[in-house]
Amino acid sequence: MNDTKTLQQAFNESLYPVGGHGKRNVGVLLEAFQGIDGGTDSDTYGSGAVIEQFQTEMAEYLGKTSSVFFPSGTMAQQIALRIWSDRSGKTKVAYHPLCHLEIHEQNGLRELHRLEPVLLADKTSLITLKDVEGLPDDVACLLLELPQREIGGQLPAFEEVEAISAHCRKRGIKLHLDGARLFEVLPYYRKSAAEVCALFDSVYISFYKGIGGIAGAILAGDTDFTEASKVWKRRHGGDLISLYPYIVPASRYFKERLPKMEQYYRDAVELAALYNGCQAVTTRPAVPVSNMFHVHVDLSKEAAERLMISVCEQTGVGLTHNINAVSDQSCYYEISLGDRYRAIPKDKLHDAFRLLRELMSGS
Amino acid sequence: MNDTKTLQQAFNESLYPVGGHGKRNVGVLLEAFQGIDGGTDSDTYGSGAVIEQFQTEMAEYLGKTSSVFFPSGTMAQQIALRIWSDRSGKTKVAYHPLCHLEIHEQNGLRELHRLEPVLLADKTSLITLKDVEGLPDDVACLLLELPQREIGGQLPAFEEVEAISAHCRKRGIKLHLDGARLFEVLPYYRKSAAEVCALFDSVYISFYKGIGGIAGAILAGDTDFTEASKVWKRRHGGDLISLYPYIVPASRYFKERLPKMEQYYRDAVELAALYNGCQAVTTRPAVPVSNMFHVHVDLSKEAAERLMISVCEQTGVGLTHNINAVSDQSCYYEISLGDRYRAIPKDKLHDAFRLLRELMSGS
Repeated sequence: MNDTKTLQQAFNESLYPVGGHGKRNVGVLLEAFQGIDGGTDSDTYGSGAVIEQFQTEMAEYLGKTSSVFFPSGTMAQQIALRIWSDRSGKTKVAYHPLCHLEIHEQNGLRELHRLEPVLLADKTSLITLKDVEGLPDDVACLLLELPQREIGGQLPAFEEVEAISAHCRKRGIKLHLDGARLFEVLPYYRKSAAEVCALFDSVYISFYKGIGGIAGAILAGDTDFTEASKVWKRRHGGDLISLYPYIVPASRYFKERLPKMEQYYRDAVELAALYNGCQAVTTRPAVPVSNMFHVHVDLSKEAAERLMISVCEQTGVGLTHNINAVSDQSCYYEISLGDRYRAIPKDKLHDAFRLLRELMSGS
Repeated sequence: MNDTKTLQQAFNESLYPVGGHGKRNVGVLLEAFQGIDGGTDSDTYGSGAVIEQFQTEMAEYLGKTSSVFFPSGTMAQQIALRIWSDRSGKTKVAYHPLCHLEIHEQNGLRELHRLEPVLLADKTSLITLKDVEGLPDDVACLLLELPQREIGGQLPAFEEVEAISAHCRKRGIKLHLDGARLFEVLPYYRKSAAEVCALFDSVYISFYKGIGGIAGAILAGDTDFTEASKVWKRRHGGDLISLYPYIVPASRYFKERLPKMEQYYRDAVELAALYNGCQAVTTRPAVPVSNMFHVHVDLSKEAAERLMISVCEQTGVGLTHNINAVSDQSCYYEISLGDRYRAIPKDKLHDAFRLLRELMSGS
């Protein structure tokens, strides 16, 4: 064993990486554009067949009147909250303390839009109906993320989402869906995207998580809302002359991978059970409800890294490329399954978990 | 002649379109990625060889310490002005009344950044040293656009830009270059990009005008400035997980077309002379200083459209796809030359202008 090798290096060199669809490389673009005629016109500042057709398809799929393609979810969601704020004259918006807007966007919502977040629930739990009932009256909009990524992809019962939606409608609070991983939870909910989205006033979905595209997002809602979002898209600098380099892959991989979401979810349930069979290892959720979960290990980050490098080098199975410290004695990492998982021979996977069980019982 | 055909249709079907490099279609992407290995890693949220190398190359070319790739100039320029405003504690920024930020960005600078523009010069003339000397003291930054697109691509003498720069430095006003078409004016100025950019504190350049890429921009300056710009890029939703679909074409077409800027400029001088030989037609500038100019025609927009459709149908030469009304008796259109111009057989071009001269003298 080479002691200087990092976990990222070991993972990159592993024969059988576990998570995702494949490497994020130019091949993703080349594959997406195979068979696309060079004479196909570019979109132009939001107009043209390539963008308009995709927006129409996505609006229909989500059961909304209209949708707009954005270069990023960061842009789309800030804009959604701004529109609901402007419409209501209220500057507060509510979301989870580990919401993408709170932890990954350099405070854009405050710095660009002067909106004030109200944080609901604590950092380890889901937003509940009770939390929502306790909202003050000066909140314009509640953002719900389904599944809640930063706590392992946990998900409220569908009935709870229905109750939250009914409560928000009664109170005049707009409900926005952060559906970055919406496709991934539909098999568990046993609902169509439209059935879930019917509970929300506006919906954002992403094309580079489970779908495996290059980048890009859709924001959907009624036509008044989406027309307003186009004005803000221009203001943000997101109304690019050409977005087809993201739309063509989004469209292709959507068709290819949407039917596989059930498979990814089943695979996550199987893999989480293997993890939970190891001493001092637990998954959150215990039984996944999508293609993702978190693996919590009762070891320091450094000890866990050494262990995962050993598994990688001895069995060829790359369990993770990155581990996050929680304390001196605990750490976790995220698993998000895609096409790669089924490419691992079952005996190799079981070799890896036999070794992981041995190492953990001896640790 | 088919009376129902629009100018845009006639232009699209013309054998010899005059402006630009070619159609904005998927072929632009496919050509740019020819020979790029599928195993080439994507950039990841602003990191990785593909984005870092290009940023280094562009910083060197512009003679600046550092540069950042942005999905759009709209985003890059608002951010530049915001940074200079925050640093100075002043909320006013000065620019031309036909600046991109004033007329094409849905008021993003005000709505997102709360900055207050001070408009310099009138809508038909360039900003002069005298205008700048008259600026109030509470202005954080002056934006100069070289060339000034909306008035035909006019350009101040280089000495005047030097004097404006010296004045701004003396007064502590930051000077920002809107260099959307900077490459295109270097042959006229007989200066390197770095010589021009040395007069400015921050510089934006674009890759889908003369360069003919798909989209994208570079913002350059000192490292403090560019590091701050990355934070704002994240806030705007422009820090995409993958920008390589724009960077690879920008890099390729930069290498391919930068050496042709002199040719495009010479061609524009030639073509403008042909226009100025027609009765009731004048170009602005009279002698172009870049690859672009405006053609002013003393006819209504509708009469001019009929005339251009005739030229298109009778000679195969598409002079323009779009005409803008000025009054009932005058209109204009923009010419921006690229690779297409030299693909027109000279006899066809002269046929077109012979016909245009006839039609104009009879009009």
